[in-house]
Amino acid sequence: MPSLFDIAAIGNAIVDVIAPASEAFLEAEGLTKGAMMLIDEAQAQALYKRMAPGVEASGGSAANTAAGVASLGGRAAYLGKVADDQLGEVFAHDMRAIGVDFRGSPLAGGPATARCLANVTADGERTMCTYLGASVELRDDDVDKEVVEGAEILYLEGYLFDPPAARRAFAKAAGLARGAGRKIALSLSDAFVVDRHREALLGFISGQVDIVFANEVELLSLFSTDDMTKAMAAIVELTAIAAVTRGESGSVILRGAESLPIKACPVEKVIDTTGAGDQYAAGFLFALAGGRSLDACGRLASLAAAEVISHYGPRPQVSLRELASSKGL
Amino acid sequence: MPSLFDIAAIGNAIVDVIAPASEAFLEAEGLTKGAMMLIDEAQAQALYKRMAPGVEASGGSAANTAAGVASLGGRAAYLGKVADDQLGEVFAHDMRAIGVDFRGSPLAGGPATARCLANVTADGERTMCTYLGASVELRDDDVDKEVVEGAEILYLEGYLFDPPAARRAFAKAAGLARGAGRKIALSLSDAFVVDRHREALLGFISGQVDIVFANEVELLSLFSTDDMTKAMAAIVELTAIAAVTRGESGSVILRGAESLPIKACPVEKVIDTTGAGDQYAAGFLFALAGGRSLDACGRLASLAAAEVISHYGPRPQVSLRELASSKGL
Repeated sequence: MPSLFDIAAIGNAIVDVIAPASEAFLEAEGLTKGAMMLIDEAQAQALYKRMAPGVEASGGSAANTAAGVASLGGRAAYLGKVADDQLGEVFAHDMRAIGVDFRGSPLAGGPATARCLANVTADGERTMCTYLGASVELRDDDVDKEVVEGAEILYLEGYLFDPPAARRAFAKAAGLARGAGRKIALSLSDAFVVDRHREALLGFISGQVDIVFANEVELLSLFSTDDMTKAMAAIVELTAIAAVTRGESGSVILRGAESLPIKACPVEKVIDTTGAGDQYAAGFLFALAGGRSLDACGRLASLAAAEVISHYGPRPQVSLRELASSKGL
Repeated sequence: MPSLFDIAAIGNAIVDVIAPASEAFLEAEGLTKGAMMLIDEAQAQALYKRMAPGVEASGGSAANTAAGVASLGGRAAYLGKVADDQLGEVFAHDMRAIGVDFRGSPLAGGPATARCLANVTADGERTMCTYLGASVELRDDDVDKEVVEGAEILYLEGYLFDPPAARRAFAKAAGLARGAGRKIALSLSDAFVVDRHREALLGFISGQVDIVFANEVELLSLFSTDDMTKAMAAIVELTAIAAVTRGESGSVILRGAESLPIKACPVEKVIDTTGAGDQYAAGFLFALAGGRSLDACGRLASLAAAEVISHYGPRPQVSLRELASSKGL
């Protein structure tokens, strides 16, 4: 069947509130640097009150990836839930304006659009506290059959393992994609998410996932080990391709016995690492859907990640298609 | 009387939606590059739909200036009206988080918080379309006597001449400040604002204003001339100090027969000029309230403006106090 989309992404639809923070602030708030923790609405309000002035930008891990694919000139669709409020309007606008197919209707009368309070330290590292709000109201009814069956690759974020209803949507989507002979990609998202849902993630990966994205800490957590060699050997037993990101050291792409190191693209100054992994996935999946080599996938992934960490906000600020073309990719 | 604040600013409380745009987009939308035009809610929705994905950041000319003064370590208060909605909450948070005294209560049951749709071209120039929403509901009741009488300098934006109720608030504040022996500063804001309200502005300046901020186009418009020498001679007849900004050519400070040229601070790359004039005013007024020389006022003004044009968004992203101190200012 010819495809309608290069990727269909499913995730928590979130607006980011991004503000600079000191290391002392993280400590005083009891936040683990670099991690994502879930908070309720009251905690979100209390933390927001103490945060520095910031900017708001549409986020959400898989949504950022969909936006990145669209920016690269790919055909991307996104499934996620916002509320019928101002931030929901912003989220929907930003998806559609970048060219992502986003057809879900906003939730009325429920919780507000999800917010991620991202505190960015001077080294560019982001520490996130997420109020899931309306995003957890994503149901299996919201999984559009035409979209999922029509996409070359279904992309899922590990964060979706947290809300129980979303996990059912996740399972339905995976079933549809598998039935239509499509590929399934998964991002592990966060070491604490992996820790909370290790068995479920392992089961899902070994049964259905073709491509896994993880950073080193997440991969170690998945296999409860501190030995990277073991973890890398273990992941290729479960899935066809694994891309392991290593921050400024670049990444390693694993396929069976193959291990392909990819350099990070140099960045003048790292401003905000929010969205680095998401844009890495965007570059990788866009190239993979286009039938490119693993090396080409890795290089486009690195380029997309480099663009996003050089400014505040989790999505590209320039056309990634033009950027890639200017670099001969 | 000892002062409570260095400046009290009054203006339209606005959240900016900032997105990149091409010259062709401005033309297709019939927008005059670099200007601010007022639009209604329906126009705002229609334009927003066609705009590129963006980021949201608290804005509003005088509010940006108050934020800049606070970032410099000054005591700033702000009077302006937001609605009881998500963007209103963002605006209030950002003011308080940077240390500005913002005591007004949000408007319930009326129009939404004001939005400025700022389209930024590749040269960093911003073209603005503003839906004034709740901001025009600022009334003379909202003018807090304690705040206005307690501030060394009352700072007003020319944009306030557009909404009739706000103009009454403006007049009340000027009367209170004058009665308490305080200084009054005014920004001309925009050439079209000047064109719409030329006589009223001239009357107000000659009667009550001590410090005028204007760019060259605004100043020429105020005196309906195309001769800068004439315009500069005319403004010093009406007010004690005038600061005329000239983009990358710097600025000129006028006081009586004195004319003091100030260099622009070099910027690696101009990203977004939104807020340049507002931060210039912040640096200038903070130094002036501290009894510094006109030269010192101008240099701090240039530094604050340079910081804000080097990133998206109309307010400082670093502590201007630390930046100034690192530059020996």
